Formats: sequence, structure tokens, C-alpha cells
Amino acid sequence: MDASPERIISAADIGAWDIETDVAVLGFGIAGACAALEAARAGAAVTIFEAAGGSGGASALSGGEMYIGGSGGTKVQNDAGFTDTTEDFAAYLSMAGGPDPDAAKIALYAGEAVKHFEWLQEQGVPYKGNFLPGKIMEPEADDTLIWSGSEEAYPFYTKSKPAPRGHTIQFMGWGGGRKLVDVLDVRARAAGVVVEANARGRALIGEHGAVVGVVVRQNGRDLNVRARRGVVLATGGFCMNREMMRMHAPEALRCSTPLGTIDDGSGILMGQAAGARVIHMNEFFVTCPWYPPESLVKGIFINQTGQRFINEDCYHGRVMRTAVAQAGDKVWLLADNAIFARPMEMAGAELAAVGESWEEVESELDFAPGTLSRTVAQYNEHAVRGEDPVWHKAAKWVQPLAEPPFAALAFTPSESMFSYFTLGGLETLPSGEVLDLAGTPIPGLYAAGRTTSGLPRWGAGYSSGLSLADSSFFGRYAGKSVAARGTV
Amino acid sequence: MDASPERIISAADIGAWDIETDVAVLGFGIAGACAALEAARAGAAVTIFEAAGGSGGASALSGGEMYIGGSGGTKVQNDAGFTDTTEDFAAYLSMAGGPDPDAAKIALYAGEAVKHFEWLQEQGVPYKGNFLPGKIMEPEADDTLIWSGSEEAYPFYTKSKPAPRGHTIQFMGWGGGRKLVDVLDVRARAAGVVVEANARGRALIGEHGAVVGVVVRQNGRDLNVRARRGVVLATGGFCMNREMMRMHAPEALRCSTPLGTIDDGSGILMGQAAGARVIHMNEFFVTCPWYPPESLVKGIFINQTGQRFINEDCYHGRVMRTAVAQAGDKVWLLADNAIFARPMEMAGAELAAVGESWEEVESELDFAPGTLSRTVAQYNEHAVRGEDPVWHKAAKWVQPLAEPPFAALAFTPSESMFSYFTLGGLETLPSGEVLDLAGTPIPGLYAAGRTTSGLPRWGAGYSSGLSLADSSFFGRYAGKSVAARGTV
Repeated sequence: MDASPERIISAADIGAWDIETDVAVLGFGIAGACAALEAARAGAAVTIFEAAGGSGGASALSGGEMYIGGSGGTKVQNDAGFTDTTEDFAAYLSMAGGPDPDAAKIALYAGEAVKHFEWLQEQGVPYKGNFLPGKIMEPEADDTLIWSGSEEAYPFYTKSKPAPRGHTIQFMGWGGGRKLVDVLDVRARAAGVVVEANARGRALIGEHGAVVGVVVRQNGRDLNVRARRGVVLATGGFCMNREMMRMHAPEALRCSTPLGTIDDGSGILMGQAAGARVIHMNEFFVTCPWYPPESLVKGIFINQTGQRFINEDCYHGRVMRTAVAQAGDKVWLLADNAIFARPMEMAGAELAAVGESWEEVESELDFAPGTLSRTVAQYNEHAVRGEDPVWHKAAKWVQPLAEPPFAALAFTPSESMFSYFTLGGLETLPSGEVLDLAGTPIPGLYAAGRTTSGLPRWGAGYSSGLSLADSSFFGRYAGKSVAARGTV
Repeated sequence: MDASPERIISAADIGAWDIETDVAVLGFGIAGACAALEAARAGAAVTIFEAAGGSGGASALSGGEMYIGGSGGTKVQNDAGFTDTTEDFAAYLSMAGGPDPDAAKIALYAGEAVKHFEWLQEQGVPYKGNFLPGKIMEPEADDTLIWSGSEEAYPFYTKSKPAPRGHTIQFMGWGGGRKLVDVLDVRARAAGVVVEANARGRALIGEHGAVVGVVVRQNGRDLNVRARRGVVLATGGFCMNREMMRMHAPEALRCSTPLGTIDDGSGILMGQAAGARVIHMNEFFVTCPWYPPESLVKGIFINQTGQRFINEDCYHGRVMRTAVAQAGDKVWLLADNAIFARPMEMAGAELAAVGESWEEVESELDFAPGTLSRTVAQYNEHAVRGEDPVWHKAAKWVQPLAEPPFAALAFTPSESMFSYFTLGGLETLPSGEVLDLAGTPIPGLYAAGRTTSGLPRWGAGYSSGLSLADSSFFGRYAGKSVAARGTV
């Protein structure tokens, strides 16, 4: 049999089942872990098939942060003096979802996120419980609550009262995602989930329009897995599949660093082969750690025409997604001596010009006279009053760039560390049921995480913690749904 | 049988064939007409099924213009003093194709477009043969050759020597597309093509992984059509299908006017149901007739931050696609008394402000002081020397906006006439063969026109005549390919 994700195999062509289970989960990132855990607790026999040697996926590359709020706020938010209504939370999620937010998922998540946070704690995910103010990417120590999106930035605050919502696992330094998955890995196994590692999903198996199993490759051998209740696709996105990127999101190929482990789109392809539709396949998250230090947020970004393109106090990923959309191969962050600092080495920013006047910087960068310098002059003119009438950067980040020497830091998507992952994928109901081309659930097929286009589905609206929140929360729903399905 | 485009029907479930033919073509726009004509001439029995009462489709809404060049140039180009190399033509098409141009189609078309133009003439498509200089949307009389893209604009001219390539059918006024289809309609029938009108493709019929027919709805009855050599999908794009627009190209829903007839995406869905993949589904063409008069090209467009966003001498659709991508709900065209004129009534532009100074216009529009006015000041400063160092508008369009009174014309995507159609769709080989999820041709399935993502596949690179050229040229190839296929 020549199994491949792009073709569904008919059950009639399967000679014998090598493995039988109620639920087969493909992928052991956080979506797969949560789906498996809930399915097992609901009484289903569950096997996770993970292509790598163990759990992790792209979730383990993350900071272990979840975007959580609503319902009055979590205890952490409340202890820090913040309340957070479900309405404000939903309004923010809706703006973050771009021109086609998933209203049903937003409504469900906005109302249940606080409970989901408590559930994570019950599983043993540790949170220190404190609030770390300031504008950062991830806590450098083991702090919990941070501002992790564009809540306080224009235009978001005009429709949703700001509250910090990034809840980060207690972990010293960046990279708490590994620990987060480890906690759930242990829980899943304790709940009876069988884990088959080095086992890659090769193709779904269908029968009379339903998904009834999956062919898995392990130890050089194809195993026919019967999944009596269904298959959950949780294999991540497609940022590592260059052909899929070309077909759907070629703009991202301007950027240097796909942020994934396997993320070959195989789950999406398997879904499509079973008749599923895909949505928003052009959307991607991208960022570059241009801050910290937060003083740089007081700088201004310009594109190759010398013009600003965003209020720089937005979430770093929103700034950089907009940067990637600019004409030209790079953008520059302008800073004066008062605020200048080097971004982290890993960002790959280049000190492109330094001068005693903005005209000197302009000339050194080969900008036309009166372009860059006039942009700064216009900015400074209003900045003396703490105002930014053009892009509405908040007053706390606005001060004139007037103290020489002046500098321009170049950020080049193809050379600096612009990391990206995909936000398009299968369309699912909040239950995790995968929709076919006609919008009808495909019996036996479920998906979660970046194999789907979920809460995060618009690069310019992304906020840290949205993908893990979506993956874990709707992963759980997928697990409950598939477990509740009668055996086929 | 509950036939719908989203589900392929198994031939095993077909009781009897109502119609048998070699080739079934769905859609009688220019793609379907050319496919049917070539298939019939190659000896195949061909039936076109058209959902409307007769030929036309979105092709008949067009100006009847084709983007043609290369091979030294057409006789029309040469008579007007232009030569056009295949290399320059291919280079332009490649830029127009955006970040993922179809190299194979470009190579084929660039080398054969002149012959294709001669073929059109042989079919009886009339061309007056003259060149109409200037910057226009479509000839108002029956002229032939016009500048119909961004050939002379930055950055296109830097990589491709400019030549006018828009070849328009001889027809008084706009709307020659109707006549163009009429000519081919007559030819197709003369070649023996059977035309079934009011006959809508409902679902493909498959057998062992090949497409062997199609269910067609006519006079309230489903007809099972056996297509011995194959089916050609030529039903247009999906701009009239609001759900597909939401899923794939929600940005276009900001615009007022879908430009289509049926264009419900049914051909794309039928292809997907047969296992085809879709590409670049987020891309769309959009324009608004903001010129003529061409003097307005000497104006400058600004967005809500008071900044320019494009060189205004680009193709009108490139300007307007970029306008739709700006933040805010409208853009403004600034003009002084020397160049001011009203755009055509149909454009739906609004005279938003008039003033004796740019500061007055700025204030009337509620822009922050020093935004709009400074943009004009910067523009004027260089314009006195005929230069535009920021956006590189060509010197002939650059003069200071210095003669009062001054005016701002507002163009609002949701209210002015911003018409759009889709550029994403099935991926095909130059032969018209439709590719499945793995990139392998699906036996018996062909597509052409806007059911596919072809030469035009990037809104910011569109040029008038690209879609008709692609639809007719690759429609012909699809017809030849399907006819050459042995009966199944």
C-alpha cells in the first residue's frame, strides 16, 4: 500500500487491523495531549501516535503561555488588581480574529477560559501567581501574568477594556512550553492513554463517508489502526512544508525562520483527503524580538519610503506582521540616545546608521532628503506633548527622538530572526468536528491546534498565548466529543 | 440523488446515462468556449453545459481586452512602434504573478501569445489595429492597443522593458467582452459543439479515481452526463459566494461590488470534491475607476494617516488593491486646481473637502495638523524638479499640487464602486489538467479560467486583459488536452 496523507484509504482495502482503539490521536503537542486526556477520562481507549520520539511538537518550543480572561478575571488577574469581563474578553478575541473571527469558538472560550485555567492548575501546571508589569516578550524569570497582546494599544482599547491576559507557566526563563507539555504528558499516560512514539500518521482510512482509522508508520512498517470512535488530527500547521507555504502563504517565505518541529501539514492534508475544507490558509503569525528592552517601544518604525506603518506599542507580532507586508526588504527602528539599546542578539538586528542629526542618518541610509527626517520631525512635533495623532501610540511610549546621537536599527525579514507559523487549516466546530466542503461534520474526524484555523487566524491580530489556549481548550473539546461518539 | 458540488458521486450509483459525450464543458464564458472549440476541432464530441440562458459569464462583463506580447510583438504593437521580447513579456508576467508566479504557464504563454492573438483574429475577433496612447481604463471608441498595466511604473520597468500589451476587440465603447464571447460562441457551434443552456453542473461523477461524468440540472431534472474523455470546469470564480469569500478572502468583503454573473465557486468545489487542491484562495482583483481623466494620475493618494501608499501611475487596480489593504475605511485622492477633474460618476467618489490651502483641506477632513499638509509639502518639494524619490512615480505624472483651490476626493471601498473578482482556485498544469492534493493530475478532470489560479494570481499585480488572456489561452490547451485523452 502506498499510503500518503493526500489520499484516503478505503477500509475495504485494509486486510487486517494491527491496532484497535476507540480514539486515535495524531500528534502529541498540547492539542493532542488535551484531546487524549479528556477522551480517556471520558472512558475511551485512546492511543496517541506521535511522529517524533516523544511529546512536544511546536508547543514545546513555546513559552508556555496562555491567553486567558473573562468571567471577572482569573485569581491572578484579580490579585494584580485587574478585572476582566467576558464581554471585553470576547470583544478583544473578535478583533484579534481579523475579518472573519470564529464567533462560536469565541463565545465558548470567552465564557470558559477562567475555568480552563483552573483545570490546567488541577492537572498540575504550576503558576507562581504574580503580575509582571511592563512590555516584554516572555518573563525572564518564573512570573505568571503579563501583557501579552495589543490590549492597551490603538485600536484595541477602543472596543475592549484592557487587561493583561498572558498566563505563563512557572518556569525560570523562556521556553516553559516544554514543561507544560510534560505535565500533560504525565497526566495523559496516567489516565490510560497509550503513547506510540516514532509513529507517523500516513493516511486516514474511510468507510461510507466516515473516518474509521488511520495508517501509521512505525519502525519501517505501516500499521492499520482502527479507531472505533474517531481520529483526532493534531499534527500542527504547515510552516515546514515549503510547497504548501508556496501554494497558500508565499508572503511568509520572505521570513527567515519557520517555527515548528515537524509541522508538515500532513494533518491538514489528511483532513482534506477525507473531504474537509480549509480556510484562511494565507494567514500566518510572525514576529521578531525587537524588544526588550522596552525603551525601544519609544522608537518609531519606518519602511523604505521613510514612513511609519504602525503604532509601535502594539504587540510585537502585530508590528512585525505589518512590517513584513511593507514594500522593500527591511524596516528600520529609529531611536535617539535617550532610548537606544541593543535588542537581544538573537533578533539579528543590524545597527544600520548612526548620526548626529536625523538628516545624517537619512543620508547614511540613502533615503531621499526630507523623507526619514521629516517623519521624525512630524513625530517629534506632537511627541513633545506626548501625542501621536497619526498612529495613536499611547502617551507613555511617546517622547521626542531629539537627543543625539541618533540611530537606525535594521530588521530584515529574510536575515533577522523573523519566526513564523501558520494560522490557516481545517475548519472545525467548537466540538472539534471537522467540516467538509459543504460545512457538514465528517463522521469520525476531529481536529485541534494549528491543524485547524481557530481563535488565532489573523497574523496582524495575534497575541502571545492565543495558540496554546486555542489548542488546549479546543483540544479538550475534541477529546470529549470523540469519546462521546458511539462506536462505529 | 442529492447532488451538490461539494460531493463527488460514484459512477456505481448512477443508474443510467442521460447524455453521452466525449467532453463535457461546464461554463460558457471565454474559457469554456475556447476549450470546447479546440476539443471539437480535435475530433471530440463536445457538449457545453451553461447555467445561464446562453454564453457569456463574467467574460461578457469585461472590456474584451487581452494582455498579449512577446515574440517581437504583435503587428499592432509593431505598427505603433513597439517591439516586445518574449523575455520582457515573461519578466513582466512573473512580477505580475506576485510571490508565487506560475513559471510553466508564463513560459508557455510568453512564447505563444502572439500566435494566440493571430488565432483570435482567425476566429473572427475584429481588431481595428491602432494604438491609443495615454492612461485610460478602456478605449471609449473602438481602438485596439492601450497601456493596460503597470509596465511604465516603478518597479515594473526596472525588470521589463515597457510595451503596451492591452489588445481590445473592435467595439464602440466599453463592454466588448460580450462581442468577444459571441464570436467564439458562433465558432464553437460551427465546430459541432452542442450547447445546453440553463444547465447547471451539480456534481462530478467519479470512478476509480477518475472523473467520468457530471450531473447536470436542467429543466428541474438531474441529467447524468457521461464524459468519455473528461470534464472541463470553466464556471468562473467565487466572488458571488459569500461563504467562500468569508472563508478565503474576507478582505474583499470590504468592497462594494462583486464582479461576476454566477461565479458561485461551484467549479472549484466540484474540483475539490474530486480531490483537487486549491491555491492562493485569498487573492482577488479589485479596482475602482478613479481615472480617467488621466490628469488625476498627477494627484496623490493618501490613507487615513495622511501618508501616500503607492506610486499613483501604477495600473488602477494595483493602486486600488493597495488602497483596500490600508487601515481605515477610505482613501483620498488629493488634487489641485491645475489637475482637478471629476472621475466618472459611476466611480462613486465623493468630493470630501475643498480649501484654499492644504492646511484647510487637512482641517476639513479632521486630519491631525501637519499630516496631510506635510505629505503634500514633501511631495511638492521634489515635484518641482519632476521627481518622486519616495514612491518613484514617473516624471510625466509629477508636478507640484500648488494651485488653489485644493481638493480631496474620497474613495470608500464599501460605498464607491470597488469591483472585485477572485484569483485563487484549482491548480492546473499548462495542459489544463487539474492537480490533486499530492500534485498529480486527476484523470479526466480539466479546468480553465477563474476556476483556476492561473497567470493572474496576485491582486497587486493584475493588469487588464490578463484574465481573458489566461482563460482563452489555457482554455484552448485544456480543450486540446482533454480531446487527446483516450476514451475511458
